Amino acid sequence: MREAILLTPGPLTTSLATKTAMLTDWGSWDSAFNALTAGVCNDLVNIVHGGETHVCVPLQGSGTFAVEATIGTLVPKDGKLLVLVNGAYGRRMAQLTRVIGRQVEVYETADDQPADPAEIAARLAADPAITHVGAIHCETSTGILNPLAAIADVVERAGRRLIIDAMSAFGALPVDARELRFDALIATSNKCLEGVPGVGFVIARREALLAASGNSHSLALDLVDQYLYLQKTGQWRFTPPTHVVAALASALEQYRLEGGQPARLGRYAANCRQLVSGLARLGLRPLLEPSLQAPIIVTVHAPNHPDYEFKRFYEAVRARGFVLYPGKLTEVETFRVGCIGAIDSAEIGQAVAAIADALAELGWIH
Amino acid sequence: MREAILLTPGPLTTSLATKTAMLTDWGSWDSAFNALTAGVCNDLVNIVHGGETHVCVPLQGSGTFAVEATIGTLVPKDGKLLVLVNGAYGRRMAQLTRVIGRQVEVYETADDQPADPAEIAARLAADPAITHVGAIHCETSTGILNPLAAIADVVERAGRRLIIDAMSAFGALPVDARELRFDALIATSNKCLEGVPGVGFVIARREALLAASGNSHSLALDLVDQYLYLQKTGQWRFTPPTHVVAALASALEQYRLEGGQPARLGRYAANCRQLVSGLARLGLRPLLEPSLQAPIIVTVHAPNHPDYEFKRFYEAVRARGFVLYPGKLTEVETFRVGCIGAIDSAEIGQAVAAIADALAELGWIH
Repeated sequence: MREAILLTPGPLTTSLATKTAMLTDWGSWDSAFNALTAGVCNDLVNIVHGGETHVCVPLQGSGTFAVEATIGTLVPKDGKLLVLVNGAYGRRMAQLTRVIGRQVEVYETADDQPADPAEIAARLAADPAITHVGAIHCETSTGILNPLAAIADVVERAGRRLIIDAMSAFGALPVDARELRFDALIATSNKCLEGVPGVGFVIARREALLAASGNSHSLALDLVDQYLYLQKTGQWRFTPPTHVVAALASALEQYRLEGGQPARLGRYAANCRQLVSGLARLGLRPLLEPSLQAPIIVTVHAPNHPDYEFKRFYEAVRARGFVLYPGKLTEVETFRVGCIGAIDSAEIGQAVAAIADALAELGWIH
Repeated sequence: MREAILLTPGPLTTSLATKTAMLTDWGSWDSAFNALTAGVCNDLVNIVHGGETHVCVPLQGSGTFAVEATIGTLVPKDGKLLVLVNGAYGRRMAQLTRVIGRQVEVYETADDQPADPAEIAARLAADPAITHVGAIHCETSTGILNPLAAIADVVERAGRRLIIDAMSAFGALPVDARELRFDALIATSNKCLEGVPGVGFVIARREALLAASGNSHSLALDLVDQYLYLQKTGQWRFTPPTHVVAALASALEQYRLEGGQPARLGRYAANCRQLVSGLARLGLRPLLEPSLQAPIIVTVHAPNHPDYEFKRFYEAVRARGFVLYPGKLTEVETFRVGCIGAIDSAEIGQAVAAIADALAELGWIH
């Protein structure tokens, strides 16, 4: 039986080329591996056109490790972070900021409501203690696209620093460091870059990073230390996930060959349109209006049937070869379907057919 | 050209079966992956016979991430750690304890000198503030074996808690939780278990772990939170390195088939004997006396020739298909050769021949 297609926000379906890149063992001290790391970091900075101003600091672990490392490194011990929350990842950013002992203020909007730039400006004007603003580019709790350019603009005008969790959008949604001012943008290998999970990275403004020495609450998560060691030696400070890095290098090569960010966005946008229209034909409608929907993951209202249970639905679709993702909202019954990964119209078409077939078998649609 | 054999303390040479286990994408929310994680955790606890008393908490990242997580979680904010240092990993444990704001005392011995249990007892008696003792099982700076049973004994008699960095020895050197008392033993996928790098784990005494709630300086590195979430949901708290975990599951299956810890130790001990005697025939002698030498990695005095440079030596051996490891001592010129990984007498014999040939070409032996 063919392995299931993952319609999730990551770990997701990767290409065979990406996976077979893991069939070599690399010495983490060897110059061949150093070159691999340098190439990956260079590619990642270039995706956001940050070569003049920013550097890439890779970090072992999941995306959350990189978010905590960024806040612990860049926000001084007496700093304060305003977090823009409209879902679980914003809440997690606020939570980890509290845990590591930095001051935090939360500006929360509804799950289907982006932050209002005027309100951000007002809060920054009202509280001079706020040094940094934390924003989520695409909040995968719902799939909502937050207005990054407008947020960056008010943060810059208020003379504060912006930290972006771009985890689920990096490489697909455009970000240009020459036009949009940020001190750090955080992402990971296993989302729109279509690598495998195990490494995060931070695109950090070089001057802000170098000024942050001594801030970190942690040795493992100290991005200044991580960066300076890598600069000095070409090697990671602590054992890197060598096979994961090799897979990312291959995934980035495939990304270039596909046509980079515009091509990746084009494929995902087509996946998203095909998915939404296919589900509409089954009477299933998305939570978000089209203008708020990022082409990353779609939150869908559950079938309106008294017997509906996500677990049964999941398993029926799983048996047909597709892995869905549960909803994350408390007030409305939803499920989620990812548009990202090494998939295109063939897989989306098959997935819609599998969902239709599963719902018919369960008797939840007519 | 065949890929090089890694004679390093990890990342090391893994079997093809371990690497091909990474050719599947796993949904991190899927029950199949949950079962994989549960199986790996169960196997890891059983290797040290800890099923009655201990639990396994896996953690994303390198081994150092797991060491910091363990100390940050288990040593209370007003606790104090006595670290037994005879090399770089002991020094790193002391350093990260300082960074995260716990009190630390260092008992340092020479690189080729294990800690003296009587001195540990004296220090514990003299300073009641010390709550925990940190020890390195095999210090790969030199390859020295520290006397774990004697250390555990004095720590227990003093009523203190023991934290063991068993990174480079876990799975090869025997540890029995029924006989040797410890609160945490930390290791990683990519050493003697012959997995790939990207995940660490902590074998923690269940009662000590559960009593440590709220201690952690970090969200990402909070082992209590990590454990409770895994217990409750079967899933990792944050995205796991799915392919790395799958490789570890395969490596553990191969470990069982080989005969478990005694067989693994037997193979590495044979590798070590063959290596040391082969190098002796070239006039190269190990730093450590046989009684202190763990069969993990051997530190070797550099050839006694005025032109010797590690870099040239490394490259000449690298060109013959073997990756050596640099020495880590400041006072003596040394290099290191690992005995671990998916290698046996064939590779060790080839490696000794390659070293002999390289040295002859360089004119550094007669």
